[in-house]
Amino acid sequence: MNNGKPSLYTSLSPALLNLYEIKSSVVVIIDVLRATSTITTALYNGAKDIIPVDSVDECIRIGKQMGAITAGERDGKIAEGLQHGNSPFEYPTTFIENKTLVLTTTNGTKLLHMALSDGANQIIIGSFANIDCVCEYLVKSGKPVLLACAAWKDRVNIEDTLFAGAVINQIKDHFDINCDSSKMALGLFNTAQSDLFGYIKNIQITHFQRLSSFGLEKDIEHCLTYNTAPVLPIYKEGKLIKA
Amino acid sequence: MNNGKPSLYTSLSPALLNLYEIKSSVVVIIDVLRATSTITTALYNGAKDIIPVDSVDECIRIGKQMGAITAGERDGKIAEGLQHGNSPFEYPTTFIENKTLVLTTTNGTKLLHMALSDGANQIIIGSFANIDCVCEYLVKSGKPVLLACAAWKDRVNIEDTLFAGAVINQIKDHFDINCDSSKMALGLFNTAQSDLFGYIKNIQITHFQRLSSFGLEKDIEHCLTYNTAPVLPIYKEGKLIKA
Repeated sequence: MNNGKPSLYTSLSPALLNLYEIKSSVVVIIDVLRATSTITTALYNGAKDIIPVDSVDECIRIGKQMGAITAGERDGKIAEGLQHGNSPFEYPTTFIENKTLVLTTTNGTKLLHMALSDGANQIIIGSFANIDCVCEYLVKSGKPVLLACAAWKDRVNIEDTLFAGAVINQIKDHFDINCDSSKMALGLFNTAQSDLFGYIKNIQITHFQRLSSFGLEKDIEHCLTYNTAPVLPIYKEGKLIKA
Repeated sequence: MNNGKPSLYTSLSPALLNLYEIKSSVVVIIDVLRATSTITTALYNGAKDIIPVDSVDECIRIGKQMGAITAGERDGKIAEGLQHGNSPFEYPTTFIENKTLVLTTTNGTKLLHMALSDGANQIIIGSFANIDCVCEYLVKSGKPVLLACAAWKDRVNIEDTLFAGAVINQIKDHFDINCDSSKMALGLFNTAQSDLFGYIKNIQITHFQRLSSFGLEKDIEHCLTYNTAPVLPIYKEGKLIKA
């Protein structure tokens, strides 16, 4: 800690998570396309809670046991045996209000469970859909921060790094940032900020290619829009709930 | 492989190396501050060969056995028991000509040994000092390329990413680049290219702070200068030699 400010680090991949001290940190799970955008949207639209699980089998088992909605994807598509996918548009109020969602995704829910096993002090969910809530919470908490990108099967990706940079851009004056990954993320955001969707589309990030081949450009555009679901999902006793 | 072009990937940290297929690839070891800059400079200045080893004990043992110069650093400083450090300025022709250097560094030589264990098709050494030689070789070889950043104790760093971006900027038309890390590296280079040293100094990368606290700004500036040592170090039978 320098100048009395708490530290801020960015982990660009789950494979790098163990390099950072997370026991005293608020860990922000970032999986912009699309897990953390969908979690935020579903809670904003009235979901009672969301249970993040790390396997499809677990998702099916808990869903049956609780009579809950099961959802998730593997490799960008609805996983076999689950009812719903990983698009924020699948969870309007008319469908999700007062319901429990059990969710498993390729990268995001896996990372959340890693952060749990590593003993994170607190886990919250970040996406462009709730960026202002995330930033406000981080500044108020006064704790060290780890921005944890879900990436794609451990390979660093642009969309999660971009979101980390967007958060840093908002809160950098409140933290001591001695972390090259954070500086790279901020630089990336500065380059892209005037038109996030145009940037992502133009640079043809790998996940854009993957999702747009399933016709999901609309999802991508939505997931890059600021503050569409101003709510803060926080992890408590096995569930993600509104803070 | 798309359009008949070989692939190009960038691994931003040794902890991510195992995500990439390296058995068919030319692996470029990148440790700009300062291992790969120093290796390149020493070979250009007439060193007979350089033996990269991954521990200080091994460095001392092999140095004695061969009557060779031992050099290396841990945490940016000359390691205890070794004769010389990791600055390119320590290896002028008058000192290094026709000699064997046994070298161990915190990140660079460790990464080289990881690439070896993983069965890299070919290993070469990249730095701004020999960037044109590296690029020419990669284009001519026609093989898949993995740009492997040494980083700092597995944490992604800006200077190695910047060099990856500089290489990509030169050779991108010859490769199929479906890799977000490579696109981020290229974006970083585009931002910084007009004044590499100014960029690194201004953004206060963690390694700049570390080295400049030892009075090594001159080293950093030299290591960010293009083509000061136009030679291609290639790994063959335990040694780095001129290609």
